[in-house]
Amino acid sequence: MSEKSDSFARLHRPGDPLFLPNAWDFVSAAVLVQAGYEAIGTTSLGVAAAAGKPDAAGATRQETLALATLLARLPVLLTVDIEAGFSDVPAEVAAFAVELVSVGVVGINLEDGRPDGTLSSKEDHCAKVAAVKSLAPDLYLNARSDAFWLAGTHGQPAMNEALERSAAYVAAGADGIYIPGIAGNEVKELSSAVDAPLNVLYLPGKDTFAELATAGAGRVSTGSLLVRATLQTIVETARRAWRQEVVPDPARPTYHQVESLLADG
Amino acid sequence: MSEKSDSFARLHRPGDPLFLPNAWDFVSAAVLVQAGYEAIGTTSLGVAAAAGKPDAAGATRQETLALATLLARLPVLLTVDIEAGFSDVPAEVAAFAVELVSVGVVGINLEDGRPDGTLSSKEDHCAKVAAVKSLAPDLYLNARSDAFWLAGTHGQPAMNEALERSAAYVAAGADGIYIPGIAGNEVKELSSAVDAPLNVLYLPGKDTFAELATAGAGRVSTGSLLVRATLQTIVETARRAWRQEVVPDPARPTYHQVESLLADG
Repeated sequence: MSEKSDSFARLHRPGDPLFLPNAWDFVSAAVLVQAGYEAIGTTSLGVAAAAGKPDAAGATRQETLALATLLARLPVLLTVDIEAGFSDVPAEVAAFAVELVSVGVVGINLEDGRPDGTLSSKEDHCAKVAAVKSLAPDLYLNARSDAFWLAGTHGQPAMNEALERSAAYVAAGADGIYIPGIAGNEVKELSSAVDAPLNVLYLPGKDTFAELATAGAGRVSTGSLLVRATLQTIVETARRAWRQEVVPDPARPTYHQVESLLADG
Repeated sequence: MSEKSDSFARLHRPGDPLFLPNAWDFVSAAVLVQAGYEAIGTTSLGVAAAAGKPDAAGATRQETLALATLLARLPVLLTVDIEAGFSDVPAEVAAFAVELVSVGVVGINLEDGRPDGTLSSKEDHCAKVAAVKSLAPDLYLNARSDAFWLAGTHGQPAMNEALERSAAYVAAGADGIYIPGIAGNEVKELSSAVDAPLNVLYLPGKDTFAELATAGAGRVSTGSLLVRATLQTIVETARRAWRQEVVPDPARPTYHQVESLLADG
């Protein structure tokens, strides 16, 4: 494994997890790097939203590669959300992974959810995982199962599906497993059962980071939380300025502080 | 004037100004449109920051056109910040303005500040203004003078410069004048003296929107305020999630609410 990929893999410590914030454009990544995070991810919702395209629809291959290329110049370990790999053909997904490695990416998320809200077959997703690890063995492959995430899948059927798929994806070569949408005892059960670091999505109002750590998570990521939080800020700040309420918080960066983030542009 | 341009021009009412929030990517614009603003602008700092390029350096011509094309499909009157026009050649600036009109833009901001922090000559800027109005007469041209904005320019010299330049830009064909960085009596003096609607930059902690209205402003815009506010939100929200503080505010849009903004993507 390359030194950077190895450093990234070692940040996944079950019980003492990596906190991974997710960015969607240059400056959202740059402020997170400035804040001191060793590693950042991307959020496909954020990338799609910035470009005005639907999420999880395989529509942002070009934007995802352009963003990876842009963020790779930041001094940070970078993992990229590639949805379902922007293709149903394992060799094409693997070729895309190789492109990402060539620009400096150390990890990817590869999901089994499909644009129509169903799961691809376990075998089809294993074939993608195996193809990527065959052509890009150094890349940290976080295999995501949407067994819990997709509408209408809950409780024991979802847990059984997630357990089966996690085992299969690890057997196919996945370095980590990502099951968004789980909380509480589900995190404990999956982290004990899965033979790889378990990535959990941080859900405000559910488990805290410490609780997810205790439950055995190896990575906690913010998914679309940060980009959604900014949308609220946009509307609220504009409304306050217009409605003559106080626009709060002097911690907002100045023009020149933002400019300095772009100084190497 | 086209119907849309005419509608936009009529929103500039000295004493009862247009409040114009500034966006920088698809979703920042989409949430502002959803919030009910009749018109939105773009912010060159935001566009540059998203792309990882310096602001006000003439580096984002392509990104600016791509963004204008993307935002023009939203049901809103759109005015675009084109810095100094991405060229020193008036005919090239005018050609760019024509491209913007062709995608549906109704207004532009054109500034006399230069990447090195100096002002271009009044005559050079008038030549750009005249060239744009000659080729794109329907476009609402907001001529911006950085007489107050650029470092080291204050007080009466800045006011004299701004007054002279405003008069010259209006004589050259500008529909409105934008002087960022002014407050209080400066707004009163300029709005009385300038024979076109005066655009003022909203500065948190200085005049409220109502005070700017009373002082005679015809447009109040947020400039880079909203994008800078989001950067604070990104860092704060990540920190709170990581440090186990409460991640506040249930008004944050859900994943599916963001997705619905992209539905026509």
